[in-house]
Amino acid sequence: MKTLEVDLGGRSYPIYIGSGILSQSELYGQHIKGSEVLVVTNETVAPLYLDAVLDQLKAYKTATVILPDGEQHKSLAVLNKIFDALLINKFGRRATLIALGGGVVGDMGGFAAACYQRGIPFIQIPTTLLAQVDSSVGGKTGVNHPLGKNMIGAFYQPQCVIADTDVLATLDDRQLSAGLAEVIKYGLIRDADFFVWLDYNLPALLARDKQTLAFAVERSCINKAQVVAEDETESGVRATLNLGHTFGHAIETGMGYGEYLHGEAVAIGTCQAADLSRHKGWITDDDVEKIIAIFKKARLPVVPPDSLSVEQFLQFMSVDKKNVDGDIRLILLKAIGEASLPVGVDQNLLRLTLETYKG
Amino acid sequence: MKTLEVDLGGRSYPIYIGSGILSQSELYGQHIKGSEVLVVTNETVAPLYLDAVLDQLKAYKTATVILPDGEQHKSLAVLNKIFDALLINKFGRRATLIALGGGVVGDMGGFAAACYQRGIPFIQIPTTLLAQVDSSVGGKTGVNHPLGKNMIGAFYQPQCVIADTDVLATLDDRQLSAGLAEVIKYGLIRDADFFVWLDYNLPALLARDKQTLAFAVERSCINKAQVVAEDETESGVRATLNLGHTFGHAIETGMGYGEYLHGEAVAIGTCQAADLSRHKGWITDDDVEKIIAIFKKARLPVVPPDSLSVEQFLQFMSVDKKNVDGDIRLILLKAIGEASLPVGVDQNLLRLTLETYKG
Repeated sequence: MKTLEVDLGGRSYPIYIGSGILSQSELYGQHIKGSEVLVVTNETVAPLYLDAVLDQLKAYKTATVILPDGEQHKSLAVLNKIFDALLINKFGRRATLIALGGGVVGDMGGFAAACYQRGIPFIQIPTTLLAQVDSSVGGKTGVNHPLGKNMIGAFYQPQCVIADTDVLATLDDRQLSAGLAEVIKYGLIRDADFFVWLDYNLPALLARDKQTLAFAVERSCINKAQVVAEDETESGVRATLNLGHTFGHAIETGMGYGEYLHGEAVAIGTCQAADLSRHKGWITDDDVEKIIAIFKKARLPVVPPDSLSVEQFLQFMSVDKKNVDGDIRLILLKAIGEASLPVGVDQNLLRLTLETYKG
Repeated sequence: MKTLEVDLGGRSYPIYIGSGILSQSELYGQHIKGSEVLVVTNETVAPLYLDAVLDQLKAYKTATVILPDGEQHKSLAVLNKIFDALLINKFGRRATLIALGGGVVGDMGGFAAACYQRGIPFIQIPTTLLAQVDSSVGGKTGVNHPLGKNMIGAFYQPQCVIADTDVLATLDDRQLSAGLAEVIKYGLIRDADFFVWLDYNLPALLARDKQTLAFAVERSCINKAQVVAEDETESGVRATLNLGHTFGHAIETGMGYGEYLHGEAVAIGTCQAADLSRHKGWITDDDVEKIIAIFKKARLPVVPPDSLSVEQFLQFMSVDKKNVDGDIRLILLKAIGEASLPVGVDQNLLRLTLETYKG
């Protein structure tokens, strides 16, 4: 087992990465203070891993909430089911919430923990590649609004992250590829060596080679932890983690949450951001081709949906947390391995990408 | 105008108290950073003060949300109306939210500000006595759940509090008395001199003598600011502000939110807490009589509702943020002017108060 530290002063916490660690009860014991534990999971993950987690929690009073699976359920209404369970069980401020699942479960579980009685401790047990390499680390929690993704939430750090790499074996192919989109992102924004490594190792990752996957998770978490430690609440460099996300969020919101997986939308959005970076003269045609090629190699979509018009893209992109006083600001690439901070974009260049980029 | 400071390091902020200050545009200008302002108010306050506030905001892009009035609307569902307005107007992270109203508007506006895009700045303009002396200061924000009051929320501090004492002139009598319950609380928990002053000055307060009211607001805010500065997130002394609130919350939740005003429920609950403090041998019969008498003098109810059974009280009191691992813990009085920290209570003593205390 590897242990990485997210260095946030009084809110620092460890990320445990390893094979079979979901069943190491001492990891739980170290991070649970009170006597009450609520496990939040979903209908896909529960049959696979809920019993294994509950087996480690026999010393506590436990309860379970099983949410429906999918981004379309990441809403205030479904969040309320978690509060219902906490209150029906009369759980207090010292109760611990465990989020066992992918990004949706982690974001909602974390946000419920942030808000219940104005904050209770929580633990992330990410069960998708995307959650292990990205969403479980760094304390971004929240839910979607019909008018914008992740618009309601909190920065709220977990007590620890338990990333059991064995669970990646049960992931379906589409989910595996979606997670790779965020892995590739770290290469693009700040780790050119990792990009080269990924380009070479993608076949092994898709074949679920255990050691290769474990390395990718670890390297991704190291990158994420460094960025978050530098800028917890996204006043600067943390925004670079949003490469491709403004385009991607427009696709997710515009097509209806759940139609595209988050990682799929990010893959397309990153190709669009790369195309726009080329129009700005920051990267070369060759760079853009390399970027499109690596996402294709990861079996990810690279072409925006035909049914989403340029005007719809602009509409949904105008609601984004990076925007300032109504102006769209984007993360673009200065090179493979180097992202810009949020930059205002010339509307004509943005339209050029939205109108002409087709993969 | 008086300015008090809530001393919370990087989250410190001023409380402005004075006559007519709601119309001092420079107070707004000092605390609004971006170009967008959402004013959240309710249907009772809007006709009285919304225009006066909007008049000070002509330099900004403004929008308004008018919520229904009453504790029964302090819910996740109504909170969503605030998010709707922020998103329909495409307001960004630098937008400022102004909560113009009583405790319900302040708690919901503050919580919406805490969650929108994971946190935007907000300003409190309390328009009830209760909000001026208590709920607008200290950063407790949130909404109710059918199973428990204030169970979903955040600690989130405003940029400033603008307490215009002129607005107390338009308050109805019931709201004025409800505010006095929290004013009396400060005397009981930590300010014996203030208790004596209040006992003498209650007639002037009920007659809305401006200077007397202004002094009561200021002295209350000084007490509140000191307690909050010492213990922002209620790990210790801040819990003393909850004197009478566990009984009171049971009344509010049990009778249906909105049936009793918060201050009314707190008045009854404080008398119950005083009765229980007597059973513990901490205060005298004479103390209890003085406490009941001052609430009566403030035209507040002092007798719990007949229709709420002892078992219902115990049921609702078992869901409380001060409880630990399922045990009810209460703030009690050691003297007039001195509250205890949360203490576990003997079930028999608690039942004795619930069964025998009738005012």
